[in-house]
Amino acid sequence: MSFANIKAIAFDADDTLWVNETLFRDAELEFCKLMKDFMPEDECNERLFEMEMKNLPMYGYGIKPFTLSLIEAAIQFSKGKVSNTTISEIINIGKGMLEAPIELIDGIDETLKYLSTKYRLVMATKGDLLDQERKLIKSGLEPYFHHIEIVSDKQPKHYQKLVNHLDIFPGEFLMVGNSVKSDILPVLEIGGHAFHIPFHTTWEHERVKDPVEHPNFKELKEASEMLQIL
Amino acid sequence: MSFANIKAIAFDADDTLWVNETLFRDAELEFCKLMKDFMPEDECNERLFEMEMKNLPMYGYGIKPFTLSLIEAAIQFSKGKVSNTTISEIINIGKGMLEAPIELIDGIDETLKYLSTKYRLVMATKGDLLDQERKLIKSGLEPYFHHIEIVSDKQPKHYQKLVNHLDIFPGEFLMVGNSVKSDILPVLEIGGHAFHIPFHTTWEHERVKDPVEHPNFKELKEASEMLQIL
Repeated sequence: MSFANIKAIAFDADDTLWVNETLFRDAELEFCKLMKDFMPEDECNERLFEMEMKNLPMYGYGIKPFTLSLIEAAIQFSKGKVSNTTISEIINIGKGMLEAPIELIDGIDETLKYLSTKYRLVMATKGDLLDQERKLIKSGLEPYFHHIEIVSDKQPKHYQKLVNHLDIFPGEFLMVGNSVKSDILPVLEIGGHAFHIPFHTTWEHERVKDPVEHPNFKELKEASEMLQIL
Repeated sequence: MSFANIKAIAFDADDTLWVNETLFRDAELEFCKLMKDFMPEDECNERLFEMEMKNLPMYGYGIKPFTLSLIEAAIQFSKGKVSNTTISEIINIGKGMLEAPIELIDGIDETLKYLSTKYRLVMATKGDLLDQERKLIKSGLEPYFHHIEIVSDKQPKHYQKLVNHLDIFPGEFLMVGNSVKSDILPVLEIGGHAFHIPFHTTWEHERVKDPVEHPNFKELKEASEMLQIL
């Protein structure tokens, strides 16, 4: 694999630049504790996932859709018996997530600092722009990025649009992310390069079973490995 | 005012391309009817506006933040007495808004069709990308636009970013929108051109009192007036 042609590198944001999954997993645990009078915790977890999947096509990704799904789930799981106090607590779980401090992924700061001197870096995320921009500013990583690319989904056609937008060819594009399904496979499909850096927990919905075999692909353990490669 | 230099035209989306305000006003009416046992309708309207303003910095714009504010308001206005049934109805008000059919603003289709042959057109919106992209596709206007620019807010610095991103100078940029505060003043401030096309109802938060006087500014009654000017 040669990187001589790479002109722009896009980084996924959540769980690639900073910890995010953990926020959602913690919120789900907190929610299922609030539901414990109505439903055992493991059943709550399972049914909450179903609720999120049902609402995903209409709501999209992010903390606000998640909060709405929690409220809908609370009413459904309690058969209409959940108290206003508990619903207020759920709203506050969501607000707490929006205000949570940023925890950077190991080695990401030094890696971006170096790469930004050699390549055009963009942040590519399917989250909510207001949230993601706020997180980027809080993270202190903003100076390394040329701009943010918000994509409504991460299918091949969305990456093709992104690459067109950057005015480069797919072979000049490298995507770095923690999700094989969203960050790796669709990029390889359009002829781009992709590095996978797994995050310790990955959302059930994002899991892909088979390991990737592709000349344009690399699996890394840590962001700082890029310092040797690029 | 000369338009010979204009290279790109950005259109605001909601209430410039399609009707949107009306959806929110109708939803507020419906909400205040649900609250009528707890609070008179005019007080409800006023206090709901306060709730939306309080949450705006954290939640941003769009239907999902609005729905969360409605739920929070229902609990507050009812002093914790609102039923789960009513909260479910509020969630469904939000979902109904997300699925509402698109009603185009008069003359917008023919105007964009013509302008797209002469200029690079972009849609510039501070809404939620998933919602806005879905509306753009449903509207049938997508083929006229080069791409969507999502801005987290519409202050001068955000327009400066947009103009940089388009690789043009501010004097080569024209913004068209229904909000003097969001679409006109910040664009004039960075040296761009701006056309104001008022929508019949404009959100209280967006109102500006003084009429605009500026060589780069024009007030239009209808989108199709652009066919004569550009």
